[in-house]
Amino acid sequence: MPYGYNGKTLRVNLSRGTMEVEEPPEEFYRTYVGGAGFISRHLLKELWPGVEPLGPDNKLIFAPGVVTGAPVPASGRNSVGAKSPLTNAYGESQAGGFWGAELKRAGYDAIIVEGKAPEPVYLWIKDGRAEIRDARHLWGKPTWEAQCRIIEELGGDRGIRIAQIGPAGERGVRYACILHDINHAAGRTGMGAVMGSKNLRAIAVRGHNPIATAHPERLSQLAKWMRDNFMSLARGYHDQGTLSVLFGLHRAGGLPTRNFQEGHFPRAVGTIDGRTLRDTVLKARRGCWACPVRCKREVEIAEPYHVHPYYGGPEYETVAALGSNCGITDLAAVCKASELCNAYGMDTISAGMCISFAMECFERGILTEQDTDGLKLNFGDAQAMLTLVERIGQRQGFGDVLAEGVARAAQHLGRGSAEYALHIKGQEVPMHEPRYKQGMGVGYAVSPTGADHCHNIHDNVHTGPSLEFEQMKSVGILEAMPSQELSPGKARLLAYFQSWRFLLNSLVMCQFVPYSPTQIVDITRSATGWDTSLWELLKVGERAINLSRAFNIREGLGKGDDRLPQRFFTPFASGPLEGVAVDPDGFARMLNSYYQIMGWDTQQGAPSLGKLEELGVGWAWEEMAKGRGDACGG
Amino acid sequence: MPYGYNGKTLRVNLSRGTMEVEEPPEEFYRTYVGGAGFISRHLLKELWPGVEPLGPDNKLIFAPGVVTGAPVPASGRNSVGAKSPLTNAYGESQAGGFWGAELKRAGYDAIIVEGKAPEPVYLWIKDGRAEIRDARHLWGKPTWEAQCRIIEELGGDRGIRIAQIGPAGERGVRYACILHDINHAAGRTGMGAVMGSKNLRAIAVRGHNPIATAHPERLSQLAKWMRDNFMSLARGYHDQGTLSVLFGLHRAGGLPTRNFQEGHFPRAVGTIDGRTLRDTVLKARRGCWACPVRCKREVEIAEPYHVHPYYGGPEYETVAALGSNCGITDLAAVCKASELCNAYGMDTISAGMCISFAMECFERGILTEQDTDGLKLNFGDAQAMLTLVERIGQRQGFGDVLAEGVARAAQHLGRGSAEYALHIKGQEVPMHEPRYKQGMGVGYAVSPTGADHCHNIHDNVHTGPSLEFEQMKSVGILEAMPSQELSPGKARLLAYFQSWRFLLNSLVMCQFVPYSPTQIVDITRSATGWDTSLWELLKVGERAINLSRAFNIREGLGKGDDRLPQRFFTPFASGPLEGVAVDPDGFARMLNSYYQIMGWDTQQGAPSLGKLEELGVGWAWEEMAKGRGDACGG
Repeated sequence: MPYGYNGKTLRVNLSRGTMEVEEPPEEFYRTYVGGAGFISRHLLKELWPGVEPLGPDNKLIFAPGVVTGAPVPASGRNSVGAKSPLTNAYGESQAGGFWGAELKRAGYDAIIVEGKAPEPVYLWIKDGRAEIRDARHLWGKPTWEAQCRIIEELGGDRGIRIAQIGPAGERGVRYACILHDINHAAGRTGMGAVMGSKNLRAIAVRGHNPIATAHPERLSQLAKWMRDNFMSLARGYHDQGTLSVLFGLHRAGGLPTRNFQEGHFPRAVGTIDGRTLRDTVLKARRGCWACPVRCKREVEIAEPYHVHPYYGGPEYETVAALGSNCGITDLAAVCKASELCNAYGMDTISAGMCISFAMECFERGILTEQDTDGLKLNFGDAQAMLTLVERIGQRQGFGDVLAEGVARAAQHLGRGSAEYALHIKGQEVPMHEPRYKQGMGVGYAVSPTGADHCHNIHDNVHTGPSLEFEQMKSVGILEAMPSQELSPGKARLLAYFQSWRFLLNSLVMCQFVPYSPTQIVDITRSATGWDTSLWELLKVGERAINLSRAFNIREGLGKGDDRLPQRFFTPFASGPLEGVAVDPDGFARMLNSYYQIMGWDTQQGAPSLGKLEELGVGWAWEEMAKGRGDACGG
Repeated sequence: MPYGYNGKTLRVNLSRGTMEVEEPPEEFYRTYVGGAGFISRHLLKELWPGVEPLGPDNKLIFAPGVVTGAPVPASGRNSVGAKSPLTNAYGESQAGGFWGAELKRAGYDAIIVEGKAPEPVYLWIKDGRAEIRDARHLWGKPTWEAQCRIIEELGGDRGIRIAQIGPAGERGVRYACILHDINHAAGRTGMGAVMGSKNLRAIAVRGHNPIATAHPERLSQLAKWMRDNFMSLARGYHDQGTLSVLFGLHRAGGLPTRNFQEGHFPRAVGTIDGRTLRDTVLKARRGCWACPVRCKREVEIAEPYHVHPYYGGPEYETVAALGSNCGITDLAAVCKASELCNAYGMDTISAGMCISFAMECFERGILTEQDTDGLKLNFGDAQAMLTLVERIGQRQGFGDVLAEGVARAAQHLGRGSAEYALHIKGQEVPMHEPRYKQGMGVGYAVSPTGADHCHNIHDNVHTGPSLEFEQMKSVGILEAMPSQELSPGKARLLAYFQSWRFLLNSLVMCQFVPYSPTQIVDITRSATGWDTSLWELLKVGERAINLSRAFNIREGLGKGDDRLPQRFFTPFASGPLEGVAVDPDGFARMLNSYYQIMGWDTQQGAPSLGKLEELGVGWAWEEMAKGRGDACGG
C-alpha cells in the first residue's frame, strides 16, 4: 500500500435489489477524504443535470470519512447527501453519534443508494455483509418504535446502530431528516425525503472489525489531551449543551425572534435558555463516539407534555426555531416539539421556520383560520405550534402546505406571503441572525445548500480574543473583525472558514470539539499514516465547495440565487441592534470579493477552469458545462 | 507579546549618512516572514514605478528570515533584493553561509539600504550598533583582499562575517553578485551592481546575542534527525556537492552544452563531473551554519591555474555555465573561472551565458576578432573563456559589452545575434534545459526574476518515486508526471512549488537540505512559537509571488514578457532527446492554465484584486495600478 488507508464503498441499487462493493484506490481517499468530499464528487459525477430529487434517479450517499471511528473525540460523525428536494441543488447534512463509526467497523467507508425499492425496505449491514430486508411493517411508525423493532428482529443486539427516516420522510416532507439512533439528526436539505422516496426506511449497521489507524499511540495522546482540557475549553457545551449560546445571542440582539422580526427576546431568559433547561428538565448529558464533551441533552418531562428521554433533548437550533422564533417560552412545549420532530423525522430548523412563517402571515392577515384548518396561529401559542408540528409530520391539512417548506408554501399561498418566507435557495434560514453575524449572512447566500450554518463563519467569535479566533490564526488570518463588518477581509475569513468546515464535514469531524486545525491535521496524519498538511486538507474542503458549486451551476443556479431575504436589509426597530441592517451595497461588494477570492467568475459565480485544475478536478469543468437550468432556486 | 517573535529592521540612508531602527509588529513578521516576503513587500511599497535600478532611489534590502540562525540545518541563508539592473523588474537572490545568522545575532532581521554614499563605504554592524565606514581603500580590490583588510581593521575577529561586492559590482556589471564570506553568492539579478551603485562595498556583521527560539528542545531533535539521516537522503550533495547532478543531466540529454545547442556532452564525463572533481581537486567539504550536509566544495589547484581554496569551489551551475555550456572540459580552467567570478563578484551563470553567447556568435560569424579585441571565441577554448571572465569583471574592451548581459549585448550588436541571446526578461537562462525539464521552462517564463531556477520545479524528480516527489504529496499532488509534460497538472505543480520555494526563500531556508514540508512547518513553529501551518506558510510564499508579480506589472511587464527563447521550441538535433522541443501550443496552454490557477488575468497575468485580498495584501492593488510601463523586459 502506498500510504496507510484503504476502504470500501457499498453501492446498493434498490430498484434491482443488487449490491456491489467498490474499492477505490487510496489516492481517491486522499483526494476526497470522505463525507462532503465524497458526496460532492459522486453527485457531480453520477447524477445527470435536472434529475428529480424525489425520483429513483437521485442517489443518496451516506459517507463517514477517513477519521471516522478513530478512537479520538469528534470522530463519530457522518455526512449524508443527495440532490435536495428543498433546493433542487446540492444537498448534504451531517450527524453525530455512533452510526458512522459502526459503519466503518462493519467494513464500509460509504454507501451509495440508487433507485427505488418496490416496497418499503431497510438495509442491514453486519461485518461486511449487507442485506435488503422488508420494512413494510415499519412504515408509518414513529422512529422509536421502528428502532426497537429492528433491533429486536436482528437479534436484540444493543450495539446495532440505525440511521432511519420517520413518517415525515416517508411522506416526502421536503425537510425530512435522517435520524441516527433517533437522536442525532442529519437535519438539513431534506435528505430524509430522498430516503423515503426510495422506500428505504432505515440502515442498520453492526461491525466488529477494529478500525486500523497508523499511529494509535499518538491518537491516544490526542484523545487524552481533549479529556484533560475540554472542561476548560468547552465547558459551556458540556454544561448547557449547544443551548449555552442562546443567552449571549439574545443579549447581543442576535436571537431570532418571531420569524426574525426581532433579535432580542427578554422573556427567553429564565424560560428557554441553557441554564434553565439544565436546572429543570435535564436528565442526563449524552455524547458521541469517543467524545468526553457530551454536549447532547437528554430531557424528561411528565407534565403537561410527556417527553421521553430516549429521544434526547433539544439543541440550540431547535429551541430557537420552535421557541423564540415562534415567540414561545414554554420549555416543555419546545422539548415536546423537539421530540415530535425526532419521532416524525424532520428538521427542527425548517419546521420551526415554517411555523413562524405561518404565524407571521396569520398575524398579518395573509392567512386566516380558513387556510389553517381553524387553527389560530399567533406567536407565542405553544399548543398551536405543537399541533402544526404534528400536522406537518403527517402532511395533514395545512400541514401539507407547510411540509413543502416556506418557499413553496409562499408560492402556493401568494398574497405577498413570500416576503415572510425566510429562505435561501429554498432552505429555511437557521438560527443565526445575518444582521448580527453579517459575514454569516454572506455565507448563507453562497452556501451550496442554501441557508446553512454548518460550513459558515460565526462573526461574533472573530471580534477579538476567543478560542476559535486564536486557533484560526494558523491559517494566517491574524486580525479581529467586527461582527457587522462586510469587507474583503471578511470574505477571506469566510472562504478559509468554509474550506475548514467542509474539511471537517469530509473527515467527518465535529466542529464543537475544540481541537485546533493543527491538532486536526495531527489526528488525520495519525489515523491515515499520510504525511498530510493543513494545506492539503484545506484544499480538500475547498475542492468540496467547488464541486458542490459546480453541481449547482449545472443545475442552473448562479449569482442571482446567492441572495439574502429582504428582511435582513431592513433595520431592527428595537433591541441592542436597533437600526442595524445589512447594507445592500456592502453585501454586494463582499459577495463580489468572495467570488474573486474563490477564483469564481463574477457573473455567475462559476468556478474557473483554473480553480478546478488547481484542485485537481479539471473533470468538473466538463460536468459543469452540461447544465441546462431547470432548478427551482426559490 | 501575542506570539513569540520580534525583530528589528535597520534602515540606512547612505546619501544622508543616517540610520534608523524600525521594529515592525509581530503580525508583520508573521505575514511576510523575511527574505523574499520582506523584499517583495518593501519594494512594492517603497519604490516608485520606473525607478532607475542603478540610481540612488533604488533600495537594496538584505533579509534573513524568522528561522535564520536557529540551530537547525538549512537556516543559514539570507535573501538580497532590489529592482534589478538586469531585468528592470523585481530582483532577488539568496545566499547560504553564515552571514544571515550572524546578522540576526547582531540584532537585525533586515537591512534596507537607501541612497548613495558620496564616497565608497562599508557598513559595520556589531551587537546592535551600526557604523558607516570609509571603504575607499578597498575599492577595486578583489574580494579576498577586501575581506582580509576589513577583518583586520575591525580587530581581527575571525567571527566577523562579510557580505560584499567585488570590482564587478563597483563597475556596474549588470549581473554582479553579492558574496558572503567570498564563497556564498547571492548571484542572480545583479544585486551586486545595485550595491556598487550605492558606493557600498561591504556589510560586515558580528553579534553575540543568542537567537531566542520558542522550543529549543524540539529544534534540537529536528537538527539531530538531519544529522542522523542526511547521509541516506542527501549523500550525493555531501559526496559530490551540487555538481553531483551533472552526470545524470548529461545522460538524460538535459545538460546545457555550447550555449544550449545540445543537451548531452560525452566529453564531460571524466572531466568536469562531480566524481572527477571529488577525486582530483577537492580539498575539503564545507557547509553553512548548523548544517551537516556540507555540499560546498573547497578546491585547490597548483597548475596550470593557481586556484586558491579560500574562494571555495564551483557549484553545478558554475561548472555547467562555464564548462559544458562553453564546450569546455578543462576542470582546472572552470575552477579558475569560478574563483575569478568570486574575486570580481559576478554571477557565474550569467557570466558563462554571456561567454557562450559570444562564442556562438563568433562561430556563426556574427562576431569577428574585430569585435572581440582579437580574441578567437571558439567553444571549448578555456583560455579565451578565462580571458573573457577577466575582461567582463574589468569591463574592459569587449568585456564591457558582455558586462551588460546578453539581452543588452545583442541589442548593441544587432546582426541577428538576439537569436543566440538566451535570456528571459533580461536574465540569462540557468543550467536547466527547458526541453528536458519542460515545466521549469514555463517556470522560467513566469518567474518574477526572469530565467531563474531558485523558485522553480525540477520536472525530472516528479516523474516517479523520489524523495522530493514523496515529500510534495503533503501539498496534495499525488500523481507523477513525465518530465516533458506540459499540462494543467504541471501548472498546478509549478504554482504550488513556487509557493514552496518562495516560502523557503522567505524563512530563509535551503532547498538542498532534505527536510520535508512537514518538518519545515515544525521548524518554523519551534523557532517562532507560532501555531502556524503549511497553509499559512505556503500562503506566505504565494504572497511573495504575487507582490513581486504586482511589482513587475507596475513596471510595465506582462504576459508578453513571459516567454521562452526560440531555441527551446526547436528540436534537439541529436542526443537522448533528439527531436524533442517545447511545443509552442502546449507552452501557451500551460501558461494560460498557470495564470488561471494563480488567480491572475489571462490578458496580462496581473494578480486579481480577489487574489490580493485573499492574501491579505489588498493594498498591492493600488500600487499595481500606478504602473506606467517603462520596463526593459528584454
